[in-house]
Amino acid sequence: MSRKSRGIAGERDLIHKFWGVGWACVRVAGSGSSQFPSPDIIASNNLRKFVIETKITRDNKKYFSSKEIRSLKFFAEKFGAEPWLSIKFFQTPWLFISTEDLRETSNNFVISKEEALTKGLTFEEFTKD
Amino acid sequence: MSRKSRGIAGERDLIHKFWGVGWACVRVAGSGSSQFPSPDIIASNNLRKFVIETKITRDNKKYFSSKEIRSLKFFAEKFGAEPWLSIKFFQTPWLFISTEDLRETSNNFVISKEEALTKGLTFEEFTKD
Repeated sequence: MSRKSRGIAGERDLIHKFWGVGWACVRVAGSGSSQFPSPDIIASNNLRKFVIETKITRDNKKYFSSKEIRSLKFFAEKFGAEPWLSIKFFQTPWLFISTEDLRETSNNFVISKEEALTKGLTFEEFTKD
Repeated sequence: MSRKSRGIAGERDLIHKFWGVGWACVRVAGSGSSQFPSPDIIASNNLRKFVIETKITRDNKKYFSSKEIRSLKFFAEKFGAEPWLSIKFFQTPWLFISTEDLRETSNNFVISKEEALTKGLTFEEFTKD
């Protein structure tokens, strides 16, 4: 599977999970290529809305460009939602990370697998009332 | 242009318009083919959220199946948003119609061009504060 197909398969997996617990969730068309800022998925339990960038990696750290995080936060603010990241490291479940929990370096943002396992929420924790 | 391409071009046109007035707006991936209910576009001015089915027609009436409307309302309720339709008839601007303004027939929903021109909101009216 190409990196892009793996990304889309990952998004579809999350969308199944959200609907499985009764949340509404959609995959955004053209995310990453649209001229307008747009997250990968939007999920809602009716009260809280979440705009989420999803990533799958086999590395022990995941980097995000400043532009990527700025764009996610900008969209979240305009839309009226919370900006989150959902990352699947090798042999971890999906971990939900608030943008606040990323470490800012001189020119990008990063979170390690260990930090994500400590600070991140599992899908069950993330969707618990 | 095929009917599908015309539909997507129409959605893109609306998305440009929404961003143009400072609203956040996305096109939903796989809308109409996904196994989960999903609208064509989702738009928000931060406070109010709208889930919208978009249609372009050269007919003088636009029909919607009961399933289509039920699915839009179901998604809207789960997501916490208002269900709307945006219809472009021949030589009209986009007209925004609340699902409440459709007429229910024995087995579907319908709105005529004349009714849409009377009851519908133009883009400017729809996005006015």
